[in-house]
Amino acid sequence: MTNSNAKGDRRERQLVNALDDRGFAVMRAPASGSATERDLPDVLAGNADVFYALEAKSSSGDPIYLTAAEVEALVFFAVNFGARPKIGVRFDHDDWWFLDPWQCHCTPSGKSYRVKQALAHDVGVTLDQLAGTQAALS
Amino acid sequence: MTNSNAKGDRRERQLVNALDDRGFAVMRAPASGSATERDLPDVLAGNADVFYALEAKSSSGDPIYLTAAEVEALVFFAVNFGARPKIGVRFDHDDWWFLDPWQCHCTPSGKSYRVKQALAHDVGVTLDQLAGTQAALS
Repeated sequence: MTNSNAKGDRRERQLVNALDDRGFAVMRAPASGSATERDLPDVLAGNADVFYALEAKSSSGDPIYLTAAEVEALVFFAVNFGARPKIGVRFDHDDWWFLDPWQCHCTPSGKSYRVKQALAHDVGVTLDQLAGTQAALS
Repeated sequence: MTNSNAKGDRRERQLVNALDDRGFAVMRAPASGSATERDLPDVLAGNADVFYALEAKSSSGDPIYLTAAEVEALVFFAVNFGARPKIGVRFDHDDWWFLDPWQCHCTPSGKSYRVKQALAHDVGVTLDQLAGTQAALS
Protein backbone atom coordinates (compact mmCIF):
# COMPACT_ATOMS: atom_id res chain seq x y z
CA MET A 1 0.00 0.00 0.00
CA THR A 2 1.47 3.35 -1.00
CA ASN A 3 1.46 6.33 1.35
CA SER A 4 -1.28 7.86 -0.71
CA ASN A 5 -3.46 4.74 -0.48
CA ALA A 6 -2.75 4.46 3.24
CA LYS A 7 -3.99 8.02 3.72
CA GLY A 8 -7.10 7.31 1.68
CA ASP A 9 -7.70 4.15 3.68
CA ARG A 10 -7.28 6.00 7.00
CA ARG A 11 -9.67 8.72 5.90
CA GLU A 12 -12.24 6.16 4.77
CA ARG A 13 -12.01 4.49 8.19
CA GLN A 14 -12.55 7.89 9.83
CA LEU A 15 -15.61 8.38 7.62
CA VAL A 16 -17.00 4.99 8.67
CA ASN A 17 -16.44 5.80 12.34
CA ALA A 18 -18.00 9.25 11.93
CA LEU A 19 -21.13 7.68 10.41
CA ASP A 20 -21.19 5.11 13.22
CA ASP A 21 -20.98 7.96 15.76
CA ARG A 22 -24.01 9.53 14.09
CA GLY A 23 -26.18 6.45 14.53
CA PHE A 24 -25.58 4.61 11.27
CA ALA A 25 -24.87 0.92 10.89
CA VAL A 26 -22.03 0.85 8.38
CA MET A 27 -20.41 -1.79 6.22
CA ARG A 28 -17.22 -1.15 4.29
CA ALA A 29 -16.68 -3.08 1.10
CA PRO A 30 -13.97 -5.72 1.24
CA ALA A 31 -10.75 -4.81 -0.57
CA SER A 32 -11.26 -7.95 -2.63
CA GLY A 33 -13.32 -11.11 -2.59
CA SER A 34 -16.70 -9.49 -2.90
CA ALA A 35 -17.86 -12.76 -4.49
CA THR A 36 -19.68 -11.27 -7.46
CA GLU A 37 -17.85 -9.54 -10.27
CA ARG A 38 -19.75 -6.33 -9.75
CA ASP A 39 -18.01 -3.25 -8.46
CA LEU A 40 -19.19 -2.38 -4.99
CA PRO A 41 -19.54 1.04 -3.42
CA ASP A 42 -16.90 1.79 -0.77
CA VAL A 43 -19.41 2.11 2.05
CA LEU A 44 -23.00 1.10 2.71
CA ALA A 45 -24.73 2.87 5.60
CA GLY A 46 -28.24 2.82 7.01
CA ASN A 47 -30.01 4.24 10.05
CA ALA A 48 -33.40 2.51 9.64
CA ASP A 49 -34.57 5.66 7.84
CA VAL A 50 -32.19 6.40 5.00
CA PHE A 51 -29.68 4.18 3.21
CA TYR A 52 -26.57 5.48 1.48
CA ALA A 53 -24.22 3.82 -0.98
CA LEU A 54 -21.06 5.90 -0.86
CA GLU A 55 -18.07 6.18 -3.14
CA ALA A 56 -15.35 7.87 -1.08
CA LYS A 57 -12.43 9.66 -2.69
CA SER A 58 -9.72 11.65 -1.01
CA SER A 59 -6.92 13.50 -2.73
CA SER A 60 -4.20 16.04 -2.15
CA GLY A 61 -5.05 17.48 -5.58
CA ASP A 62 -7.97 19.52 -6.88
CA PRO A 63 -10.12 18.44 -8.68
CA ILE A 64 -10.80 14.89 -7.54
CA TYR A 65 -11.43 12.47 -10.40
CA LEU A 66 -13.64 9.40 -10.57
CA THR A 67 -13.87 7.05 -13.51
CA ALA A 68 -17.19 6.87 -15.31
CA ALA A 69 -17.21 3.13 -14.55
CA GLU A 70 -16.97 3.84 -10.79
CA VAL A 71 -19.84 6.29 -10.89
CA GLU A 72 -21.99 4.01 -13.04
CA ALA A 73 -21.32 1.03 -10.76
CA LEU A 74 -22.23 3.15 -7.73
CA VAL A 75 -25.54 4.23 -9.23
CA PHE A 76 -26.32 0.69 -10.44
CA PHE A 77 -25.69 -0.82 -7.00
CA ALA A 78 -27.58 1.93 -5.17
CA VAL A 79 -30.67 1.72 -7.36
CA ASN A 80 -30.66 -2.07 -7.18
CA PHE A 81 -30.13 -2.16 -3.41
CA GLY A 82 -32.51 0.65 -2.59
CA ALA A 83 -29.99 3.21 -1.33
CA ARG A 84 -29.15 6.80 -2.25
CA PRO A 85 -25.90 7.04 -4.21
CA LYS A 86 -23.53 9.71 -2.92
CA ILE A 87 -20.01 10.65 -3.86
CA GLY A 88 -17.90 11.68 -0.89
CA VAL A 89 -14.85 13.84 -1.57
CA ARG A 90 -12.17 14.74 0.94
CA PHE A 91 -9.60 17.34 -0.02
CA ASP A 92 -6.55 17.97 2.19
CA HIS A 93 -7.25 20.31 5.12
CA ASP A 94 -10.98 20.09 4.47
CA ASP A 95 -13.96 18.06 5.66
CA TRP A 96 -15.87 15.41 3.73
CA TRP A 97 -18.38 16.79 1.25
CA PHE A 98 -21.07 14.68 -0.39
CA LEU A 99 -22.56 15.16 -3.83
CA ASP A 100 -25.17 13.43 -5.91
CA PRO A 101 -23.55 11.66 -8.87
CA TRP A 102 -25.33 13.95 -11.34
CA GLN A 103 -23.81 17.00 -9.65
CA CYS A 104 -20.31 15.90 -10.71
CA HIS A 105 -18.92 17.17 -14.00
CA CYS A 106 -18.40 14.68 -16.74
CA THR A 107 -15.14 15.30 -18.59
CA PRO A 108 -15.26 15.90 -22.36
CA SER A 109 -14.02 12.35 -23.06
CA GLY A 110 -16.99 10.97 -21.11
CA LYS A 111 -14.67 8.52 -19.37
CA SER A 112 -14.38 10.28 -16.04
CA TYR A 113 -16.03 12.68 -13.67
CA ARG A 114 -14.35 15.48 -11.77
CA VAL A 115 -15.27 17.33 -8.60
CA LYS A 116 -13.59 20.66 -7.88
CA GLN A 117 -13.26 21.71 -4.29
CA ALA A 118 -15.24 24.89 -5.04
CA LEU A 119 -18.07 22.81 -6.52
CA ALA A 120 -18.07 20.53 -3.46
CA HIS A 121 -18.45 23.58 -1.18
CA ASP A 122 -21.08 25.06 -3.47
CA VAL A 123 -23.46 22.13 -3.99
CA GLY A 124 -22.25 19.43 -1.58
CA VAL A 125 -23.58 18.61 1.87
CA THR A 126 -21.53 18.04 4.99
CA LEU A 127 -21.40 14.80 6.94
CA ASP A 128 -23.81 16.20 9.54
CA GLN A 129 -26.23 17.23 6.83
CA LEU A 130 -25.94 13.79 5.20
CA ALA A 131 -26.55 12.10 8.55
CA GLY A 132 -29.51 14.35 9.25
CA THR A 133 -27.90 15.58 12.45
CA GLN A 134 -27.99 19.12 11.02
CA ALA A 135 -30.71 20.44 8.74
CA ALA A 136 -29.65 20.49 5.10
CA LEU A 137 -29.42 23.95 3.65
CA SER A 138 -30.88 23.07 0.28
CA MET B 1 -7.35 -20.92 5.83
CA THR B 2 -8.29 -24.45 6.84
CA ASN B 3 -10.19 -26.75 4.50
CA SER B 4 -13.28 -26.24 6.61
CA ASN B 5 -12.99 -22.45 6.40
CA ALA B 6 -12.30 -22.66 2.68
CA LYS B 7 -15.52 -24.64 2.22
CA GLY B 8 -17.47 -22.13 4.31
CA ASP B 9 -15.98 -19.30 2.29
CA ARG B 10 -16.88 -20.98 -1.01
CA ARG B 11 -20.43 -21.60 0.14
CA GLU B 12 -20.80 -18.01 1.29
CA ARG B 13 -19.63 -16.83 -2.15
CA GLN B 14 -22.21 -19.13 -3.75
CA LEU B 15 -24.86 -17.60 -1.49
CA VAL B 16 -23.84 -14.08 -2.53
CA ASN B 17 -23.98 -15.05 -6.20
CA ALA B 18 -27.35 -16.76 -5.75
CA LEU B 19 -28.77 -13.59 -4.19
CA ASP B 20 -27.25 -11.53 -6.99
CA ASP B 21 -28.93 -13.86 -9.52
CA ARG B 22 -32.24 -13.20 -7.78
CA GLY B 23 -32.01 -9.43 -8.22
CA PHE B 24 -30.34 -8.40 -4.98
CA ALA B 25 -27.46 -5.97 -4.65
CA VAL B 26 -25.16 -7.70 -2.19
CA MET B 27 -22.20 -6.67 -0.06
CA ARG B 28 -20.09 -9.18 1.81
CA ALA B 29 -18.39 -8.05 4.98
CA PRO B 30 -14.62 -7.68 4.77
CA ALA B 31 -12.65 -10.41 6.53
CA SER B 32 -11.04 -7.65 8.57
CA GLY B 33 -10.65 -3.91 8.53
CA SER B 34 -14.29 -3.06 8.95
CA ALA B 35 -13.14 0.22 10.52
CA THR B 36 -15.43 0.16 13.55
CA GLU B 37 -15.06 -2.36 16.32
CA ARG B 38 -18.56 -3.66 15.87
CA ASP B 39 -19.14 -7.14 14.55
CA LEU B 40 -20.67 -7.06 11.12
CA PRO B 41 -23.12 -9.49 9.56
CA ASP B 42 -21.58 -11.70 6.88
CA VAL B 43 -23.78 -10.39 4.10
CA LEU B 44 -25.97 -7.34 3.50
CA ALA B 45 -28.48 -7.59 0.65
CA GLY B 46 -31.20 -5.34 -0.69
CA ASN B 47 -33.52 -5.34 -3.70
CA ALA B 48 -35.07 -1.88 -3.24
CA ASP B 49 -37.93 -3.58 -1.40
CA VAL B 50 -36.49 -5.69 1.42
CA PHE B 51 -33.12 -5.54 3.14
CA TYR B 52 -31.48 -8.51 4.82
CA ALA B 53 -28.56 -8.71 7.22
CA LEU B 54 -27.39 -12.31 7.07
CA GLU B 55 -25.19 -14.42 9.29
CA ALA B 56 -24.18 -17.42 7.20
CA LYS B 57 -22.99 -20.67 8.78
CA SER B 58 -22.17 -23.91 7.09
CA SER B 59 -21.13 -27.11 8.75
CA SER B 60 -20.62 -30.81 8.14
CA GLY B 61 -22.13 -31.39 11.59
CA ASP B 62 -25.64 -31.17 12.97
CA PRO B 63 -26.61 -28.98 14.79
CA ILE B 64 -24.93 -25.78 13.63
CA TYR B 65 -23.85 -23.52 16.47
CA LEU B 66 -23.64 -19.74 16.67
CA THR B 67 -22.29 -17.79 19.61
CA ALA B 68 -24.74 -15.56 21.46
CA ALA B 69 -22.41 -12.64 20.67
CA GLU B 70 -22.74 -13.31 16.91
CA VAL B 71 -26.52 -13.43 17.09
CA GLU B 72 -26.72 -10.31 19.25
CA ALA B 73 -24.38 -8.40 16.94
CA LEU B 74 -26.48 -9.47 13.94
CA VAL B 75 -29.69 -8.24 15.52
CA PHE B 76 -28.05 -5.01 16.71
CA PHE B 77 -26.69 -4.21 13.25
CA ALA B 78 -29.91 -5.15 11.48
CA VAL B 79 -32.15 -3.07 13.72
CA ASN B 80 -29.78 -0.11 13.51
CA PHE B 81 -29.36 -0.36 9.73
CA GLY B 82 -32.99 -1.04 8.97
CA ALA B 83 -32.67 -4.61 7.68
CA ARG B 84 -34.23 -7.94 8.61
CA PRO B 85 -31.83 -10.18 10.51
CA LYS B 86 -31.67 -13.73 9.20
CA ILE B 87 -29.51 -16.68 10.08
CA GLY B 88 -28.57 -18.79 7.09
CA VAL B 89 -27.54 -22.39 7.72
CA ARG B 90 -26.07 -24.75 5.19
CA PHE B 91 -25.69 -28.41 6.10
CA ASP B 92 -23.74 -30.80 3.86
CA HIS B 93 -25.80 -32.18 0.95
CA ASP B 94 -28.56 -29.65 1.67
CA ASP B 95 -29.61 -26.19 0.51
CA TRP B 96 -29.41 -22.95 2.46
CA TRP B 97 -32.19 -22.46 4.99
CA PHE B 98 -32.93 -19.13 6.67
CA LEU B 99 -34.33 -18.60 10.14
CA ASP B 100 -35.24 -15.62 12.25
CA PRO B 101 -32.81 -15.28 15.18
CA TRP B 102 -35.60 -15.95 17.68
CA GLN B 103 -36.36 -19.29 15.98
CA CYS B 104 -32.93 -20.62 16.98
CA HIS B 105 -32.57 -22.50 20.23
CA CYS B 106 -30.55 -20.90 22.96
CA THR B 107 -28.35 -23.45 24.75
CA PRO B 108 -28.76 -23.84 28.53
CA SER B 109 -25.57 -21.85 29.18
CA GLY B 110 -27.03 -18.92 27.27
CA LYS B 111 -23.73 -18.45 25.47
CA SER B 112 -24.67 -20.00 22.17
CA TYR B 113 -27.51 -20.83 19.83
CA ARG B 114 -28.00 -24.03 17.91
CA VAL B 115 -29.91 -24.88 14.78
CA LYS B 116 -30.71 -28.50 14.07
CA GLN B 117 -31.20 -29.54 10.46
CA ALA B 118 -34.71 -30.78 11.28
CA LEU B 119 -35.58 -27.38 12.77
CA ALA B 120 -34.22 -25.59 9.70
CA HIS B 121 -36.46 -27.73 7.47
CA ASP B 122 -39.39 -27.22 9.82
CA VAL B 123 -39.40 -23.45 10.34
CA GLY B 124 -36.81 -22.08 7.91
CA VAL B 125 -37.39 -20.59 4.48
CA THR B 126 -35.49 -21.42 1.31
CA LEU B 127 -33.39 -18.97 -0.67
CA ASP B 128 -36.18 -18.54 -3.21
CA GLN B 129 -38.67 -17.83 -0.44
CA LEU B 130 -36.26 -15.35 1.15
CA ALA B 131 -35.74 -13.65 -2.19
CA GLY B 132 -39.46 -13.52 -2.83
CA THR B 133 -39.04 -15.48 -6.05
CA GLN B 134 -41.29 -18.18 -4.60
CA ALA B 135 -44.20 -17.55 -2.25
CA ALA B 136 -43.32 -18.26 1.38
CA LEU B 137 -45.31 -21.09 2.90
CA SER B 138 -45.80 -19.45 6.28
